Amino acid sequence: MVDSVEIGMGRTARKSYGLGDVSIVPSRRTRSSSKVSTSWQIDAYRFALPMLTHPSDAISSPRVINEVGRLGGLGVLNAEGLWARYADPEAALARILEKSSDDEAEGLLAGSVDLLQELYAAPVDPDLLKQVIVDLKAAGNTVAVRVSPQNAASLTPVVVAAGIDMLVIQGTIVSAEHVEKGGEPLNLKSFIADQDVPVIVGGCSNYQSATHLMRTGAAGVIVGYGAGSTTTTNEVLGIDVPMATAIADAAAARRSYLDETGGRYVHVIADGDLQTSADVVKAIACGADAVMLGEQLTAAEEVPGQGFYWVSAASHPQLPRGHVSYCGGADVPLETLLLGPASTTLGDTNIFGALRRAMAKTGYSDLKEFQKVELSVQG
Amino acid sequence: MVDSVEIGMGRTARKSYGLGDVSIVPSRRTRSSSKVSTSWQIDAYRFALPMLTHPSDAISSPRVINEVGRLGGLGVLNAEGLWARYADPEAALARILEKSSDDEAEGLLAGSVDLLQELYAAPVDPDLLKQVIVDLKAAGNTVAVRVSPQNAASLTPVVVAAGIDMLVIQGTIVSAEHVEKGGEPLNLKSFIADQDVPVIVGGCSNYQSATHLMRTGAAGVIVGYGAGSTTTTNEVLGIDVPMATAIADAAAARRSYLDETGGRYVHVIADGDLQTSADVVKAIACGADAVMLGEQLTAAEEVPGQGFYWVSAASHPQLPRGHVSYCGGADVPLETLLLGPASTTLGDTNIFGALRRAMAKTGYSDLKEFQKVELSVQG
Amino acid sequence: MVDSVEIGMGRTARKSYGLGDVSIVPSRRTRSSSKVSTSWQIDAYRFALPMLTHPSDAISSPRVINEVGRLGGLGVLNAEGLWARYADPEAALARILEKSSDDEAEGLLAGSVDLLQELYAAPVDPDLLKQVIVDLKAAGNTVAVRVSPQNAASLTPVVVAAGIDMLVIQGTIVSAEHVEKGGEPLNLKSFIADQDVPVIVGGCSNYQSATHLMRTGAAGVIVGYGAGSTTTTNEVLGIDVPMATAIADAAAARRSYLDETGGRYVHVIADGDLQTSADVVKAIACGADAVMLGEQLTAAEEVPGQGFYWVSAASHPQLPRGHVSYCGGADVPLETLLLGPASTTLGDTNIFGALRRAMAKTGYSDLKEFQKVELSVQG
Amino acid sequence: MVDSVEIGMGRTARKSYGLGDVSIVPSRRTRSSSKVSTSWQIDAYRFALPMLTHPSDAISSPRVINEVGRLGGLGVLNAEGLWARYADPEAALARILEKSSDDEAEGLLAGSVDLLQELYAAPVDPDLLKQVIVDLKAAGNTVAVRVSPQNAASLTPVVVAAGIDMLVIQGTIVSAEHVEKGGEPLNLKSFIADQDVPVIVGGCSNYQSATHLMRTGAAGVIVGYGAGSTTTTNEVLGIDVPMATAIADAAAARRSYLDETGGRYVHVIADGDLQTSADVVKAIACGADAVMLGEQLTAAEEVPGQGFYWVSAASHPQLPRGHVSYCGGADVPLETLLLGPASTTLGDTNIFGALRRAMAKTGYSDLKEFQKVELSVQG
Repeated sequence: MVDSVEIGMGRTARKSYGLGDVSIVPSRRTRSSSKVSTSWQIDAYRFALPMLTHPSDAISSPRVINEVGRLGGLGVLNAEGLWARYADPEAALARILEKSSDDEAEGLLAGSVDLLQELYAAPVDPDLLKQVIVDLKAAGNTVAVRVSPQNAASLTPVVVAAGIDMLVIQGTIVSAEHVEKGGEPLNLKSFIADQDVPVIVGGCSNYQSATHLMRTGAAGVIVGYGAGSTTTTNEVLGIDVPMATAIADAAAARRSYLDETGGRYVHVIADGDLQTSADVVKAIACGADAVMLGEQLTAAEEVPGQGFYWVSAASHPQLPRGHVSYCGGADVPLETLLLGPASTTLGDTNIFGALRRAMAKTGYSDLKEFQKVELSVQG
Repeated sequence: MVDSVEIGMGRTARKSYGLGDVSIVPSRRTRSSSKVSTSWQIDAYRFALPMLTHPSDAISSPRVINEVGRLGGLGVLNAEGLWARYADPEAALARILEKSSDDEAEGLLAGSVDLLQELYAAPVDPDLLKQVIVDLKAAGNTVAVRVSPQNAASLTPVVVAAGIDMLVIQGTIVSAEHVEKGGEPLNLKSFIADQDVPVIVGGCSNYQSATHLMRTGAAGVIVGYGAGSTTTTNEVLGIDVPMATAIADAAAARRSYLDETGGRYVHVIADGDLQTSADVVKAIACGADAVMLGEQLTAAEEVPGQGFYWVSAASHPQLPRGHVSYCGGADVPLETLLLGPASTTLGDTNIFGALRRAMAKTGYSDLKEFQKVELSVQG
Repeated sequence: MVDSVEIGMGRTARKSYGLGDVSIVPSRRTRSSSKVSTSWQIDAYRFALPMLTHPSDAISSPRVINEVGRLGGLGVLNAEGLWARYADPEAALARILEKSSDDEAEGLLAGSVDLLQELYAAPVDPDLLKQVIVDLKAAGNTVAVRVSPQNAASLTPVVVAAGIDMLVIQGTIVSAEHVEKGGEPLNLKSFIADQDVPVIVGGCSNYQSATHLMRTGAAGVIVGYGAGSTTTTNEVLGIDVPMATAIADAAAARRSYLDETGGRYVHVIADGDLQTSADVVKAIACGADAVMLGEQLTAAEEVPGQGFYWVSAASHPQLPRGHVSYCGGADVPLETLLLGPASTTLGDTNIFGALRRAMAKTGYSDLKEFQKVELSVQG
Repeated sequence: MVDSVEIGMGRTARKSYGLGDVSIVPSRRTRSSSKVSTSWQIDAYRFALPMLTHPSDAISSPRVINEVGRLGGLGVLNAEGLWARYADPEAALARILEKSSDDEAEGLLAGSVDLLQELYAAPVDPDLLKQVIVDLKAAGNTVAVRVSPQNAASLTPVVVAAGIDMLVIQGTIVSAEHVEKGGEPLNLKSFIADQDVPVIVGGCSNYQSATHLMRTGAAGVIVGYGAGSTTTTNEVLGIDVPMATAIADAAAARRSYLDETGGRYVHVIADGDLQTSADVVKAIACGADAVMLGEQLTAAEEVPGQGFYWVSAASHPQLPRGHVSYCGGADVPLETLLLGPASTTLGDTNIFGALRRAMAKTGYSDLKEFQKVELSVQG
């Protein structure tokens, strides 16, 4: 039973809500922040923080993955990113940053798109990719690697052989069965069944699509496509995923699937519309088990993008749905950004301290309980 | 059954929605863009792209009509435009552009209205009009020509004699029967019955008015009046046509009329509120068979307006409802604008590539099916 | 039966709508503008235009009242304005304009309030007031004069003796019975019964208050308090009168009162939220019989305020609810502003031509019928 | 029975409203302002004005508390503010103002947070605190002092011994029973039972939390956490308290608790979202017995912050939820600000004159009656 409106005679539309539309209402006893746990476990892996990095080259470099791991989260390496295509990824990165700084100065929005297209047209080098994974493993990380649905079949053997712990199959919109021209479609169900590592897959956008992805045997599904200030999927395709609704729907799918399978719990990971610590809090409150952070990490001084951000869809050769934009200061240690103490007052630092405190103010002691917190929408 | 609210005691208003109010929600399997068809057939004419040009002199010159035809769409010539009034339309155009550039520099909004009124007061020259049509035919185009309801009776014989393939009778608001002062009203039903070419007529704004126009025997009805950033019908008359609602209503009228006639399918053509490729996608999703593009084409380097845009209502002698404004860059080939690859990231180029991809992401293979895609409105 | 929401447990609020929230939807046959009548008759007086002037000294000078009368409307003189207080009202006016121009240049909003308070503290001179009325009569005008509820008892004999045709008792919020400290309250019912001229009274804001005012025996009631860009009643008092709802409510009261009295028709006059010709159209569409124009007239070259505007409440000695602001160009003849042809495209000129055309586009031939036109609110 | 929406499948959210969402609708007879009383009595204390000061050091200095008392309101001293920590509070204040002026000039938002953290880390000096209280008593004030929930146990004996008349236990979100790490939780019920002075406690945010606080035996509960332009709880924690809904909910709790106890009336004090006199009016209209003014008082020339404002949460060492910002002119006597005559037109001066007039315009003679005034929300 969902709320809908009739936009015209005989044509209905679902009423849906973004994270900015909802707020949290304290209504129970409070508790001390120190009595709150933000820990998250997926498959055999336990994390102090319920977070993954969005596999954007602007933020998710090997250095950042190491640091995020040290702080209690899970960095995700893009198997199709600059580190997998160039022996000297820093040089490619430098070209993007130089061009984008010039564009920014001139107010050009889509100026770097040609360059992104050129740089991401270079082939993935399996040996480079393997070496990055081996190094991350050697540093003691839980290693998660993202492949696109298009390249999942060819790249997965490479990254698995290199010893990854978790596989992330991620495109903007991923369906359980993709109808491909000519060649075979990727049957996610049989593909995932063949893997020995747990798989996270997405993005999806509502109950049906989340349910279908859960039935592939994935350990986690991603809700959303990393929408943020640099993405333009809404302007280009008219497709939008209001995150509060999409997360709540996926959480409902998680419950149904748990019942259907007699106990398989598939994690819901929110990716998109996350601008502040408040948005992270609300994503969990709407039903997410963890969040995927992208644009929010541009403020960290360790990130490769030095404050600039872009997503994979921005380098699409025919229809880029995003651009390179300056988002953050790149002047705060990642540790401050994630764990505080906050150096700012607008929800951009001490993100998980804010989550902890919001849980304390509303009287919840763990994330699973906090998914029941009372919500309001302004009328 | 439509949603309505009581604005005051005993006075209700219909709840209605613009294209900006709705979004598309992917909920099925995805498919490859290459397995999607955007083709559109009206009467005996088949087009690769479901589009017409709005008959504004700012964009719909003979040159552009030729090029749009080559690319798979249908250009519409205004039988009451500069090409029908002046042996040297370029000179008239040059005056508009010079005045408008000066106004733009000074921040004057309605500065060119006097000039438009003057230029469009010149009489239509039947010989000039015929010659343009003959040339367009000779170039191999399907030729569609727009006449106003006021001049339909006098101009239609001229354009039909010149060999047009399709007639477009278009005003801002057109009704099946117009009550005229003194003289005879134009009875659209008998008028259209007398024509040998298929007729498209509009604009209309809801179920009743769309139904009435369908009953005239038209092959297609236009929904909306080309509302955009240069039109001010809303500010002047208080009349507004929220396009998502109007298109869905007209689609409902199409279904009823199909049933009423045992099979006559009247095409619904959306004209207004179209700013981005996303808007084109949403118009089809709401039920349109095709879209009429105006302001969006100002970005093309081939258009006569060189980035400036105006509609017929802007030259009204007593009550202009629009002005000449600079809308676009006029710096992208029409082919790039319609078919890509996109040179920008905000939905202003590769418009029909975006439509194709949105259909693919939501799992639909033709336009008719895509009219059923799931919609959402943000709460 | 009105729509309401529960803002908190056990506390409801009425859902209400401003003119900007509603639009007009054409759904019938169209007709020629020339077959439309905008004429309005109240008591024995018939006007070509359904309009009064708001009795602000910024626009409603004797000169403007003469010109409005010539064009078919009804100017209202403020019996407590500068023309009734000063033998040389132009000098007082000049001081306001000079101070306000200086304030405007410095960005000061409330700078002229002290001066207004000082100027309006001067006593009304009955002889001056009488002379203005006598002159207006002599020029052939239907003469309407506004008194405040506070001064109705003392000033009415003066203006009636001078020969007015209509009395307007107007404050921001006027009730049928006012509880006064110490002295006697003004009992509007007995007061109006004692007058030989028809009385218009207001403002009121909903069904109950409109009904009460109708029962005083008034010929017309004013809905609203002239809210516009220079008034701040909402910010100061928290009182707001969303005009679409208030007008529709007053129209419902008119129907009930018509039934209750077996045929007394009390006119509903909308005063507030009128920025464009579209707003005038919508006010009639919501149920008003006529509109009171204030701020919109500042664009006329004949008005005394030379583009500046202020209302009576701005000169309140303890709690001014408005200020003097520059609103218009003062560069268009009043005739153009009211009757066209339009020299602009944003609904600020040819106001009643726009009303006429909106009626034509929606197929209505007189104002009373047009009160039934279909409305929409955007969802 | 509350209005709610389904934001996703199986997940509802309460519809809630801010003060800016509601307006007041006059619908009864009017009365003279002079026949209106704004007096407020809590426990044995009677005030001409229904107001307290928010215990921010930016506005609630001993000097201001004296002046507010003289004018008929109740100033609240922060027992953990600069006057309790520094023998020379003016010097500490001067450092904040100097730093904040520099930050303001540079557009830095959170620049002063470090300094606030440093200054508020100094220990409270019981002797200094006692002396301030003794001086305020000596000046004839009703003395109310605020302590935080964390320090209530340790500081209350100090301030009670110094002779306070009323105790305010105030944090952003306060619950009746707080779960503390390690040590004993503060049991508000037994704590308040032990006090000889009446206690005001808060903030709370809805029916449940208000009810729980009422059951502690408090004389008044605070609704909200002083949200304003300098607070960022919403951005940091995702917690928001839409004040119209929260006040109405607390008023419902007051009615239930009155019934439950057979007659104990607990006062509802609104703290937050108060920008103009209109907001004060609306807070009472929604059900508040009194308001707590903070940011609005920055315009007074007597306040220590000289136009800058900050709240306690802005000095939090780990997660500041606010900053120091310039809010007002600091150029109007407090008497003008509270009692008029208004020197401005936007609801920032003569706050309680505006309340008085709004009551008069709607026909109510005391605050308790005015809580029933008709409200509207714009649709």
